[in-house]
Amino acid sequence: MKPLGPIPNGYAAIDGELGIAGRKVSDIITEAGTTPLFVYSRDLLTQRVATLRAAMPKRLAIHYAVKANPFGPVLQHMSALVDGFDIASGGELALVRAVGIDPSRVSFAGPGKRDAELEAAISAGVTLNLESEGEAARALAIALRIGITPRLAIRVNPDFDLKGSGMKMGGGAKPFGIDAERVPALARQLIAEGADWRGFHIFAGSQALSADAIIETQAQTLDLAARLAEGTGAPLPKCNLGGGIGIPYFPGDVQVDIAKVGAALAERFAALPDVLQGTSFVMELGRYLVGEAGVYLATIVDRKVSHGETYLVTDGGLHHQLAASGNFGTVVRRNYPSAIATRFDAPAEEEASIVGCLCTPLDRLADKGGFPRADTGDVVAIFCAGAYGASASPAMFLGQGPAREILL
Amino acid sequence: MKPLGPIPNGYAAIDGELGIAGRKVSDIITEAGTTPLFVYSRDLLTQRVATLRAAMPKRLAIHYAVKANPFGPVLQHMSALVDGFDIASGGELALVRAVGIDPSRVSFAGPGKRDAELEAAISAGVTLNLESEGEAARALAIALRIGITPRLAIRVNPDFDLKGSGMKMGGGAKPFGIDAERVPALARQLIAEGADWRGFHIFAGSQALSADAIIETQAQTLDLAARLAEGTGAPLPKCNLGGGIGIPYFPGDVQVDIAKVGAALAERFAALPDVLQGTSFVMELGRYLVGEAGVYLATIVDRKVSHGETYLVTDGGLHHQLAASGNFGTVVRRNYPSAIATRFDAPAEEEASIVGCLCTPLDRLADKGGFPRADTGDVVAIFCAGAYGASASPAMFLGQGPAREILL
Repeated sequence: MKPLGPIPNGYAAIDGELGIAGRKVSDIITEAGTTPLFVYSRDLLTQRVATLRAAMPKRLAIHYAVKANPFGPVLQHMSALVDGFDIASGGELALVRAVGIDPSRVSFAGPGKRDAELEAAISAGVTLNLESEGEAARALAIALRIGITPRLAIRVNPDFDLKGSGMKMGGGAKPFGIDAERVPALARQLIAEGADWRGFHIFAGSQALSADAIIETQAQTLDLAARLAEGTGAPLPKCNLGGGIGIPYFPGDVQVDIAKVGAALAERFAALPDVLQGTSFVMELGRYLVGEAGVYLATIVDRKVSHGETYLVTDGGLHHQLAASGNFGTVVRRNYPSAIATRFDAPAEEEASIVGCLCTPLDRLADKGGFPRADTGDVVAIFCAGAYGASASPAMFLGQGPAREILL
Repeated sequence: MKPLGPIPNGYAAIDGELGIAGRKVSDIITEAGTTPLFVYSRDLLTQRVATLRAAMPKRLAIHYAVKANPFGPVLQHMSALVDGFDIASGGELALVRAVGIDPSRVSFAGPGKRDAELEAAISAGVTLNLESEGEAARALAIALRIGITPRLAIRVNPDFDLKGSGMKMGGGAKPFGIDAERVPALARQLIAEGADWRGFHIFAGSQALSADAIIETQAQTLDLAARLAEGTGAPLPKCNLGGGIGIPYFPGDVQVDIAKVGAALAERFAALPDVLQGTSFVMELGRYLVGEAGVYLATIVDRKVSHGETYLVTDGGLHHQLAASGNFGTVVRRNYPSAIATRFDAPAEEEASIVGCLCTPLDRLADKGGFPRADTGDVVAIFCAGAYGASASPAMFLGQGPAREILL
């Protein structure tokens, strides 16, 4: 039997079934009309932001990275909770505008911004995190042509990475941002050309679970920001420190000690160098804010045994849960937290694999886990489905189409 | 510098640019209106089927596996070339019907068929490849309820796999098909219950490049079919031998010697046991028929250097080319065949990585390849994009949306 990842806090049984947002999954599925289904919990989103704010210094603004979960109702709910939004494309700009988010609260990072995307962002008053000197030149030319002062920040490719992070975004050659040593010259140029100078965006990595690693990276990030601001010779209006706080997906993973992270950051803020005294600091998080607030539900359509192994074949699969299947940036496949949602408080009785309906051996959502006995019609839950699920999976594969999503 | 995969046959320079279907990429992009863009070649599809038919015994029917490329115009073009179609979902059934393909030419395999999909398939006269005894019971009950004789075949989980295949579909416990030893009993039951008995579907693996491995697997498949037909005690109307013929993606890969495969199969067909004398044989192929007939084109929106490494940042990415980015069922990332399409006949001048526009280090289409110097506005081509590209990638990731597709 292979272990399953830890089920996040906030989920308890109701009448023997998994409860989400105080309701049983069978009732939720009746309301939504069908599985496969992503269910997101308003309360868990609210609680997570509140917990984070309580742990972090008041001076730190919290931004939400839309890429983690761009579902409209989630964006709308987050709008009242966070201080700003980070987008990664013109498509995401349209999504945040569709739910009425003020573009002046939005910043846009991404290595391949097309001219049309730059123009849409500048016109709307979005802050651009410039990824190269070439992009800076294009942005300045577009701003000049349309007669709008662009709000420009520089994304810095830091010369360090976030240790233990799932995605390294710094420390060596990268397609993201501008190598630190070239940043002051470009910043001076942007200011000289009359841009609305918005500062730095420094993102060293994501999905780290060690508070010490995050603390070390934040310290390095502040040092780098100070050095680059000194080099620029102008006050630094804003500094996006990145995110990096991960969530536990796999057996043995534990929550980040954010109280420790917040205390260390408060100490740092109390001893900022002069050049950063007037700077607004931002932490930008996606997965940490929404990941554990979402559950993916799929119905078992077949229970079968092959050569002694039991398979629970569902109507869902990797077309909605690519990362959970182990096929997205993972070297060794491990099990996400998962359960039989319709028998949530029953003890494990057998070893079974939960697979999807796709005709490929890649489509495995839980490998040889311990579960209560489940049959056709039972519902499985894959947890940690709030981030990089629905929008980060090949929904059209094998003609399946997207899953429904619901925010409760 | 890291090697690139071999560019397939059928692509030559026209006025210095990559030519597809006899036209320059710049003209194709003008016609399509934009990049990123998938271009598929009618001629290469036609040629591939003709080459295959010439190599294979006349007795062997050729089916196309829709999952490889479900683009409507491709399905329509294939309709005149192949003998049948294999689908993997109700969604794919709708796609083949939308282009006027007769459902009696269609078979349906897939481990998680919902009741509604079974009903739609039975109603339309599609042959169901049953994946379990449970699915068989559901299909029979639905057929009885709607008063239609179902066309039923059994998907067999063979007790061997295709050696060297990219995807192993047999040889041990699998979510696909029914373990071989249980097949005769189920076949007898289906016949006894009055189903239109259609035979076996035996799929041991896919994407193999060794003719010898394919020949060995086909021999094992025919032996297994004979054994199971004997056990059933009834003539075997049809046997789908699976596919398995791969295409070269990576440095060092070579084309399968299909003449050798065809000759071996002809010998086998000449010496069939009595129980298979009247059987229709089918080979079902997806990737091999369409993979090399497609090219993915993306425009360079930024050229940047970080710590001495050159990045060509494009308007495409893993949201259309997940497999090429090395994030779909791959352990070690290797380069697909790729080129600067607007400088197709120029010699390699520098080392560069082609990356996508997504804000993730996973989004790399070619890693440290040797290319002619390319700048913003140049177009890159990723080859072998005809199969498992557009429909097998997370198109909505980071708000990007699907690429255009065109058949020329």
